[in-house]
Amino acid sequence: MLTHLDKNDRPKMVDVSDKSDTYRVAVASGIITMSDQALHNVLQNRNKKGPVLQTAVVASIQGAKQTSTLIPMCHPLLLTSLSCDIQELKDGFKLTVTAKLKGQTGVEMEALTGVSVGLLTIYDMVKAVDKTMVIKDIKLLQKSGGKSGTYEYDMPKT
Amino acid sequence: MLTHLDKNDRPKMVDVSDKSDTYRVAVASGIITMSDQALHNVLQNRNKKGPVLQTAVVASIQGAKQTSTLIPMCHPLLLTSLSCDIQELKDGFKLTVTAKLKGQTGVEMEALTGVSVGLLTIYDMVKAVDKTMVIKDIKLLQKSGGKSGTYEYDMPKT
Amino acid sequence: MLTHLDKNDRPKMVDVSDKSDTYRVAVASGIITMSDQALHNVLQNRNKKGPVLQTAVVASIQGAKQTSTLIPMCHPLLLTSLSCDIQELKDGFKLTVTAKLKGQTGVEMEALTGVSVGLLTIYDMVKAVDKTMVIKDIKLLQKSGGKSGTYEYDMPKT
Amino acid sequence: MLTHLDKNDRPKMVDVSDKSDTYRVAVASGIITMSDQALHNVLQNRNKKGPVLQTAVVASIQGAKQTSTLIPMCHPLLLTSLSCDIQELKDGFKLTVTAKLKGQTGVEMEALTGVSVGLLTIYDMVKAVDKTMVIKDIKLLQKSGGKSGTYEYDMPKT
Amino acid sequence: MLTHLDKNDRPKMVDVSDKSDTYRVAVASGIITMSDQALHNVLQNRNKKGPVLQTAVVASIQGAKQTSTLIPMCHPLLLTSLSCDIQELKDGFKLTVTAKLKGQTGVEMEALTGVSVGLLTIYDMVKAVDKTMVIKDIKLLQKSGGKSGTYEYDMPKT
Amino acid sequence: MLTHLDKNDRPKMVDVSDKSDTYRVAVASGIITMSDQALHNVLQNRNKKGPVLQTAVVASIQGAKQTSTLIPMCHPLLLTSLSCDIQELKDGFKLTVTAKLKGQTGVEMEALTGVSVGLLTIYDMVKAVDKTMVIKDIKLLQKSGGKSGTYEYDMPKT
Repeated sequence: MLTHLDKNDRPKMVDVSDKSDTYRVAVASGIITMSDQALHNVLQNRNKKGPVLQTAVVASIQGAKQTSTLIPMCHPLLLTSLSCDIQELKDGFKLTVTAKLKGQTGVEMEALTGVSVGLLTIYDMVKAVDKTMVIKDIKLLQKSGGKSGTYEYDMPKT
Repeated sequence: MLTHLDKNDRPKMVDVSDKSDTYRVAVASGIITMSDQALHNVLQNRNKKGPVLQTAVVASIQGAKQTSTLIPMCHPLLLTSLSCDIQELKDGFKLTVTAKLKGQTGVEMEALTGVSVGLLTIYDMVKAVDKTMVIKDIKLLQKSGGKSGTYEYDMPKT
Repeated sequence: MLTHLDKNDRPKMVDVSDKSDTYRVAVASGIITMSDQALHNVLQNRNKKGPVLQTAVVASIQGAKQTSTLIPMCHPLLLTSLSCDIQELKDGFKLTVTAKLKGQTGVEMEALTGVSVGLLTIYDMVKAVDKTMVIKDIKLLQKSGGKSGTYEYDMPKT
Repeated sequence: MLTHLDKNDRPKMVDVSDKSDTYRVAVASGIITMSDQALHNVLQNRNKKGPVLQTAVVASIQGAKQTSTLIPMCHPLLLTSLSCDIQELKDGFKLTVTAKLKGQTGVEMEALTGVSVGLLTIYDMVKAVDKTMVIKDIKLLQKSGGKSGTYEYDMPKT
Repeated sequence: MLTHLDKNDRPKMVDVSDKSDTYRVAVASGIITMSDQALHNVLQNRNKKGPVLQTAVVASIQGAKQTSTLIPMCHPLLLTSLSCDIQELKDGFKLTVTAKLKGQTGVEMEALTGVSVGLLTIYDMVKAVDKTMVIKDIKLLQKSGGKSGTYEYDMPKT
Repeated sequence: MLTHLDKNDRPKMVDVSDKSDTYRVAVASGIITMSDQALHNVLQNRNKKGPVLQTAVVASIQGAKQTSTLIPMCHPLLLTSLSCDIQELKDGFKLTVTAKLKGQTGVEMEALTGVSVGLLTIYDMVKAVDKTMVIKDIKLLQKSGGKSGTYEYDMPKT
């Protein structure tokens, strides 16, 4: 056995075979900031690639379903619910994804992946008018179910 | 034709058929912040799922290749080069992806998607010890090639 | 909250978390019509790309497994059975897919997606000899299991 | 060599290595028919899963990009343009996809796959109110570029 | 019904709807042989594409999760555990994958697919220095759970 | 910069941006051995999951197209030709895949991945009657095009 691939030091999917199925929910959010011009274009649906926010919602939901394909050590999961909200900020948008399942492992990564893909979709559709956009504040807001119990992010002021 | 699906207001993949092939490069980066304990675990490769940074580099490169699957209006592209660097910060890590191709459209989204997937992979592998991690500062650092010429992000102090 | 993205008007994956697992079956079918020459070629396995019907059956089953990747608001499901039959018609073929699972939501979309991908595969392999083919009559024939009970299509004469 | 797998009788991807790159366009369309109630719901965006037509357009474009994954003998292609229109009919919707590339093989299958996935998405989002919907008239409307030249479907009256 | 597509002679996903969920484990392994020079390069992490074995472990785990996408008649499964070990041999490497789930069908194919993708990844990263590598001895070592009970490969001397 | 992630020691996709497009071909093969009973079943198409060899050919071609998704450091490529032959041996089957493209990098991995997926598909469809099958001798037979010129495997006696 190679020393740098022994039991303590190689990537693996954590064994959840013995965990019981519990009802699990995770909520994650993230923000994209943009110029006034870009924000205006999104809200007016006046950009070259089409209506931005609806497309971002669809992409976010489809992206969340790809989590175990994208994140190497994530388990495949049977999500029972996925939804995505987008809130207008004064300098951009906040996107929030809620994921649920009854299963053996949590759905934080699904919510966070949904947020990331949704924000990247907004970026893609707006980048022709603003290259200085920044994606930030991607974090887990809330999590319930499972051994570790309920978690609430101690909300910072964004 | 439905009014809200007319020529001015529906999503589409922008037509690049008439663009010429040019050599294009994009560099994007992003940051994940974490607790001292979590940072220490990553650097010691002492976490339950295995060595974090090597896994993140692989995931980042594989994720970048999925860009046109994940981002609805992105064109499929033949990336000729992808690389990913990870830099240690005092409270986390900065991940940088460089993407290249000779083609008809830019590779910003590939670089940004690689950054996002790499950071999410770090998050996944560390979340057992720190649920307060935040992914931030995902942005385009540099871009060259194509009609719009070279772009450099006017570096903020992170 | 953007008015056109509020609770009543944004795409989401319907929450099935509270539904109980029941045994579910769905049967869907569809038809492709083609010229005599094309039909003859398929039946003789005399076309440039190889034996058409066997390839269509394989593609149909593989396509059905991609349903939640393709159809944005579909849940990922653990199909326990998939089969595909092809019946010769006087001017083409009728392809029928049966999908089953024990789960929280129905498998109509899996059956219908399998039918569509199977028919598109026939189209692809025959298009060199006939560009006038038409795919039609894709519909749900039967569905059982779940809250809405058994459904039978009131069979039209095709 | 097995007799039923010899040179004349096995599936393969047709060799296009020697074809020259030409500018190619394909337009395909298809129809979904539904009840008055279902049609009304779609037009009012009053259905459980969210706005139907925008979601169908996004799914159609994403689906078209999956063509070579879904249809076994299709070549991977670098589509340079994809767009999707939806037209209201008195008993349903007509969805039209236009695909373009400069390449060695045609884009009919990409246009047809986009049409199929778009129509299946409408089906999925409306099926809670109407199980009798039928998908029909999926066909190639127009094709140009390549050795076989321009093709126009001799329009039937739908 | 076409005679060569009747009940006895067409591919289908075997119906496991009535099987009960049992705890299942499968272990598979395979070997890649290479030149002394190539072996030395891998062990020194001195090859153009980067550290080989860590990348192979990640690829193996990600590949195993794609089993039902790659192998046409495989059921989608919710793997609860996946791990990959690599052992140094005098003329190459032996890669072993262990897969687990509680479900209705076995996980042999997941273990075997993980082994194959891991070995192909080593091949890819080393092929610049050795084109004569051979992948061999891919087999099921052990299997437990399910109707057919426990199976142990009668170990040959490799 | 982390020492184990510096320029000399991290995985990356090799930069092929400056390579010229050349016509490239690769041929790879591999073998699966099985019991007389299993071999007989395959040749008679008498196994529970359906006709094995046709399904393996389709899976092999579809699998080869997934190479850059499966093998982390592989470039996405536009394969212009893929074909798969299966030859009967006295104790199993030999599967050969030929891949072609005009492009900047070789297609060995595509041929080898096609071989692996084809052989795994045979394994899957036959495993109910024989668990002792072994996949072996997966290797590159021939390669032409590109800087490194033509390569022919110095055929061993299998």
